[in-house]
Amino acid sequence: MTRVELITVGDELLSGLVLNSNVARVAESLASVGLGLSVVCDVSDDLDEIVAAVRASAARADVVLCSGGLGPTSDDLTRDALARAAGVGLDVDDGVVQTLRDRYAEWNIPMPDLALRQAEVPQGATLIPNPRGSAPGLQMRIDGALVLALPGVPGELQAMLDATVAPLLAGLAPGPAPVTATLRVALAGESGVAAALTGVQGAGEAAGVRFAYLADGGDVRVRLTGPAEAVAATEQAVADALGHGVYSRDGAPLEAVTQRLLLEAGATVAVAESLTGGMLGAALTELPGSSAVFLGGVLVYATAAKADLGVDAALLAERGPVDGDVAVQLAERVREKFGADYGLATTGVAGPDPVGDYPPGAVFLGLAGPNGAFSRRRDLPPRRDFVRRLTVLAALDLLRQELLGLPRDG
Amino acid sequence: MTRVELITVGDELLSGLVLNSNVARVAESLASVGLGLSVVCDVSDDLDEIVAAVRASAARADVVLCSGGLGPTSDDLTRDALARAAGVGLDVDDGVVQTLRDRYAEWNIPMPDLALRQAEVPQGATLIPNPRGSAPGLQMRIDGALVLALPGVPGELQAMLDATVAPLLAGLAPGPAPVTATLRVALAGESGVAAALTGVQGAGEAAGVRFAYLADGGDVRVRLTGPAEAVAATEQAVADALGHGVYSRDGAPLEAVTQRLLLEAGATVAVAESLTGGMLGAALTELPGSSAVFLGGVLVYATAAKADLGVDAALLAERGPVDGDVAVQLAERVREKFGADYGLATTGVAGPDPVGDYPPGAVFLGLAGPNGAFSRRRDLPPRRDFVRRLTVLAALDLLRQELLGLPRDG
Repeated sequence: MTRVELITVGDELLSGLVLNSNVARVAESLASVGLGLSVVCDVSDDLDEIVAAVRASAARADVVLCSGGLGPTSDDLTRDALARAAGVGLDVDDGVVQTLRDRYAEWNIPMPDLALRQAEVPQGATLIPNPRGSAPGLQMRIDGALVLALPGVPGELQAMLDATVAPLLAGLAPGPAPVTATLRVALAGESGVAAALTGVQGAGEAAGVRFAYLADGGDVRVRLTGPAEAVAATEQAVADALGHGVYSRDGAPLEAVTQRLLLEAGATVAVAESLTGGMLGAALTELPGSSAVFLGGVLVYATAAKADLGVDAALLAERGPVDGDVAVQLAERVREKFGADYGLATTGVAGPDPVGDYPPGAVFLGLAGPNGAFSRRRDLPPRRDFVRRLTVLAALDLLRQELLGLPRDG
Repeated sequence: MTRVELITVGDELLSGLVLNSNVARVAESLASVGLGLSVVCDVSDDLDEIVAAVRASAARADVVLCSGGLGPTSDDLTRDALARAAGVGLDVDDGVVQTLRDRYAEWNIPMPDLALRQAEVPQGATLIPNPRGSAPGLQMRIDGALVLALPGVPGELQAMLDATVAPLLAGLAPGPAPVTATLRVALAGESGVAAALTGVQGAGEAAGVRFAYLADGGDVRVRLTGPAEAVAATEQAVADALGHGVYSRDGAPLEAVTQRLLLEAGATVAVAESLTGGMLGAALTELPGSSAVFLGGVLVYATAAKADLGVDAALLAERGPVDGDVAVQLAERVREKFGADYGLATTGVAGPDPVGDYPPGAVFLGLAGPNGAFSRRRDLPPRRDFVRRLTVLAALDLLRQELLGLPRDG
């Protein structure tokens, strides 16, 4: 069995200033090639600590992944630590120097001398390209272990895991390279999903399929890894068990799935947002090509703004801004205003204070389209950031199901 | 210097299913008594792994904290691991048995036999009371180190840190507790900030102040830790070196600083967003209390939507949507439409495709307020998600500097 350990470098991890979300990124990437983490060690930006951690892991493991400490500043010490742990010196790589000069020029930022630290490479190490940033990764052997050092910046780490690390490690997994399938479900707590899949998971694991649940807000990824045939059968069983809730079986996020469906339908959308304050529009414009499907919207945060968009003033006076019929009218008015095929609206209580009789977490979604308009109520976990994020997922999923012509099952 | 290490036990940490938030709880508790974590190791629910981690930490550290693995189920193995690492057996503690019986009776749940595992105590260990749950913590000596084992359930861990662990460890801290200061700068590359602080950092470190740089998108945190007097002097030196760019000296994010300034000024804001598609409104509504300062906005994503808001059609036809004067008119029109004190607008090229003669990253910000309207151009790193996120930071920072009456230095 291939033993893989992860060393995450950074004072901010040990001080509790930031949560170590890179563990999840590395774990998911490893799972995709049938590997898992045996140990994760967080160490501070201290040369001796990093050297000790690298030596200890290299002595135990077949593969040692390091994240963080590759940046340009004085507390980025992973390069120096790897060189010392391997007992070699550091050379300046001219290719990296040129890449740095080009990148800073492209970014319209003058390159500080400090940036050149990122061109220092331990003797015998090879470079891992960084498509997202300026610091390349490093690959070398220490005490017989394969050591891969990657940046700690999540976007850069993820890109390098996908492009280089996972393919490199795929060969190390025991037996034939496993296949993976990822199903995504919106607005599901991972324990709820896991409970719904208890039987399916038992059968799948008996067939050699490894289950991993990755939860991010209301978004849950179910990742299956194992022999091709068993994974295919298990994927279908999972899809059947979770039903309409499954929005993607290729790993695509809900924003991408919704945009793809709009493009395929040649349809446009406009949004009217209250409690989400722009997050729904932001999600619908996150990806290139969004201008073909997203026309615009109105942030009707203040109640007056809802009336100004054309919501019946008497209705607002009688029911207040948090109401299903208000959501319907917001969707209808914004659809008309922008001449869009679909109008999508959010109104509700983000919290911490209640609105009228509604507690934080009470949310109404409105959808207006070629087949008429309707609203849905959602009662979400009452924490402001959850409520807002889950409302966006719920609105996108409502539009997705409407575009697919799925039954409006509430 | 007292060396403290933390071992967190649980498969779910290594699979990435949950973020290890207990590190932050332990770090805060230690900081309150002037101590810090040197290393954190996450290990799986595997007896050999836990034993190896405990032995390694006990050999290096003065204090070893363990969290997790004290529950009643078969994969709760910390008790057994501590006994094996210390080379002792496990005794059943009658007091704990009685406490368990009482608690289950109180819950009206028949006590499962498995629950009695929680009454097993390594010989020579003393108990740490658990005011929140059924599993007590353990305190013992292994290889000369003080080992404290606590539950992984956050609420139980926190209660036991506060009631027992922090008071117990307070005596171990050397000298007065260190203080920390955090300064935040928007739209600054990490290396740019570090370069600007080279001299300041040298002087600060000579006075015993530790520097940490945390970059997240265009947002950089400079964190100082050390003796109170030296930190205060260094904080001022950093603020002087970075000038107007410093938006917060209490760790508050730019969204919070801008909202606070609006509240203090009794001022309101409305937004007109093109390339940011709602992200600016989302940022201004992220925090409780935003309804007092944020009235709403218009997502003028399509060019027609810009004209519909009232931007001069001839100007749009002549210059296109990416233009400084268009940004000014967007800010003025949205300010009028919502009757806000300030109108804030974004237009530019998120990419990947250019717009007219403008490449991805070319952005215009518009600000209209009591002191007139103006625009600023920014040329940002040309990657869609950077451009959008940095545009939001630039817009918030423009409003912040206007609210502070800082010179409009472009």
